[in-house]
Amino acid sequence: MKVIEGGVCAAKGFSANGVHCGIRRNQSKRDLALIYSACPASAAAVYTTNLVKGAPLLVTARHLADGKAQAVVCNSGNANTCNAGGEEVAEEMCRLLGHELGIRAEDVVVASTGVIGQPLDLSPIAHGIPSLVKGLSPQGGKFAAEGIMTTDTALKEIAVEFTLGGKLCRMGGIAKGSGMIHPNMATMLVFITTDAAISATMLEKALRSDIRDTFNMVSVDGDTSTNDMVAVLANGLAGNDEITAETPDFAEFMRALNTVNLFLCRAIAADGEGATKLLECEVAGARDKFVARTVAKSVICSNLLKAAMFGADANWGRVLCAIGYSGADVDVGKIDVAFRSCKGEITVCRNGAGCAFSEETAKDILSQKEISILVDLHDGAETSRAWGCDLTYDYVKINGDYRS
Amino acid sequence: MKVIEGGVCAAKGFSANGVHCGIRRNQSKRDLALIYSACPASAAAVYTTNLVKGAPLLVTARHLADGKAQAVVCNSGNANTCNAGGEEVAEEMCRLLGHELGIRAEDVVVASTGVIGQPLDLSPIAHGIPSLVKGLSPQGGKFAAEGIMTTDTALKEIAVEFTLGGKLCRMGGIAKGSGMIHPNMATMLVFITTDAAISATMLEKALRSDIRDTFNMVSVDGDTSTNDMVAVLANGLAGNDEITAETPDFAEFMRALNTVNLFLCRAIAADGEGATKLLECEVAGARDKFVARTVAKSVICSNLLKAAMFGADANWGRVLCAIGYSGADVDVGKIDVAFRSCKGEITVCRNGAGCAFSEETAKDILSQKEISILVDLHDGAETSRAWGCDLTYDYVKINGDYRS
Repeated sequence: MKVIEGGVCAAKGFSANGVHCGIRRNQSKRDLALIYSACPASAAAVYTTNLVKGAPLLVTARHLADGKAQAVVCNSGNANTCNAGGEEVAEEMCRLLGHELGIRAEDVVVASTGVIGQPLDLSPIAHGIPSLVKGLSPQGGKFAAEGIMTTDTALKEIAVEFTLGGKLCRMGGIAKGSGMIHPNMATMLVFITTDAAISATMLEKALRSDIRDTFNMVSVDGDTSTNDMVAVLANGLAGNDEITAETPDFAEFMRALNTVNLFLCRAIAADGEGATKLLECEVAGARDKFVARTVAKSVICSNLLKAAMFGADANWGRVLCAIGYSGADVDVGKIDVAFRSCKGEITVCRNGAGCAFSEETAKDILSQKEISILVDLHDGAETSRAWGCDLTYDYVKINGDYRS
Repeated sequence: MKVIEGGVCAAKGFSANGVHCGIRRNQSKRDLALIYSACPASAAAVYTTNLVKGAPLLVTARHLADGKAQAVVCNSGNANTCNAGGEEVAEEMCRLLGHELGIRAEDVVVASTGVIGQPLDLSPIAHGIPSLVKGLSPQGGKFAAEGIMTTDTALKEIAVEFTLGGKLCRMGGIAKGSGMIHPNMATMLVFITTDAAISATMLEKALRSDIRDTFNMVSVDGDTSTNDMVAVLANGLAGNDEITAETPDFAEFMRALNTVNLFLCRAIAADGEGATKLLECEVAGARDKFVARTVAKSVICSNLLKAAMFGADANWGRVLCAIGYSGADVDVGKIDVAFRSCKGEITVCRNGAGCAFSEETAKDILSQKEISILVDLHDGAETSRAWGCDLTYDYVKINGDYRS
């Protein structure tokens, strides 16, 4: 698996663009993004499990009922959620875009992100669509990635190359996500493109399987958004034999998808609102996968641990506490905990009790930008990882006055 | 139900004290507390559901197996948890105290709060016990309340008067709790005394029933402590006929217990680490109690809502979002949301969508110290309340370097 340039435009036949259409006041911030495939693509998506669902998700779910799509349109600045007539607005976005592109409105995936509860004004979008479409280019991936950002501070994109049946395939993805990040079944906004040929059924199977160990293991603040969505478009232009069953090609496709998703997960966690550090909890020795995932996610979600990591404080009692209340069935008397970063690794707890360690070494390890919290349950062979970030003054600042 | 002075010493036969014995370096902070009943009392307690349980909780559970106790000893500064030999230390605390008081070690309730994972040194406790016992007094309630505080900024005590079968009874309680507050079945450290006569069985029944709507509905940070405990001692000195069944007297006793517990809940939430505001979520119109409680707790636990309340930002989308991911079965299209404080009440969402409101009025309402978030599900008659606090810079500061 080779990482390449190009983001969502790395795969054959995909072009993209992002423009400022006027939903946001800041003229220099692109607020409308488009990804387009030269031909209809197999498509699958997963959505938030929040009972309050953004109107665009409902519309997209209807559009993907046939497993086909050709374009993705997404605005930032307004979530088009909890307002009157939101679905009509989302449908109209698809109609206007489809008209301009010469494709069916039903082949458009639509998404929105931003403030909840305010009507989404169609006029800037209608006004922006012609230039959005006109500017489509195989170099436009970064513009699209920028167009979907809200409080994100970093653009998130990746692409990889892989081979299926001797044919070179590519897969790329972009993501936005910084606050209200605690995906459940789906996540944030992630758009993935690939030129691999794969049936819509197998594409959905791949996506649903992968997110359990990728996006569903990310948490910035424990709040599951109303507008989470991961959508994948596979247009088949790589020319490989279409994947229609669980073949070795499907396994290779899954590896590519996992590589893209893992990268975007870590990018989202590292860019958590106000974050100064990427946290990764690696759980080993679990009796089953459920225990491994539950423990990893509980540790990464603990506000107390997140604040301790911000302060580079080796307060491993917070880790034990979070494992204890996770609901997972573990033997607390067997747990080992260590901290690791580029500066080394230090064991701070053995068999559920503290062990002597150098506070200075621990401080040095925890003062880095990427911290791993290593938990060994000594109770089996299953493992899991979860990603999050530290809790900082800036998280409070950003969310104390989000709407202004 | 009349609120009176005296805290845990308000009930007949109870005395208390708190001293600085040297667990904490700060000489002016009392770190060892004692509550004593002149005669053996019916006793009941509930404990954390965290799988990692503090050693004192295990010892206390053994001591209360017979439903009797005569004293409560509690230290702050060290949680006596996740260390080697913690139970032996807790047993020895009871033995030393029992010896000094002339009572059985098995009639002592023991608790500890502070840092997890460090051995608890017995010597300052052994050294402090004689003066702790010598200073016992009916005026010592405040000293005991101070002795159990950690990051608490306010002393939490209350007492009430009520009548059972014509006999005047009193009940008082003290509490500590500021961070790592997300009780589940039990909570924080709360010690309640009463001179009412009630069997241990009915006392436990009253306690278990009441905490579901009081302590289990409080959350400061979503972290369930390893050392949560609520213990009640009822010594019967009021002279009422002992409560041994669900009589009208039991109902009156429950009302007294609920009054004491509600007061302490609100005091703990308002004194949440770094908090500037007490938040209360009142849910009405729920189809059942489970839905009402789930929704109220989910709203009060949302980091995004807590940060918005810190900023006095009427971002009601955060409320809808938290209801949506709560797991409760609700019809989001029926939900109304309003904010209330001493400055008035303002409706911000009707039928799941935003309604026009004055941002200035909302800001004024949300700038007060006590904020109610009112949710009407319009789906039944059940109600619930939950308590929490805002998420502030100081929460991060306190927990970024807790151990120093």
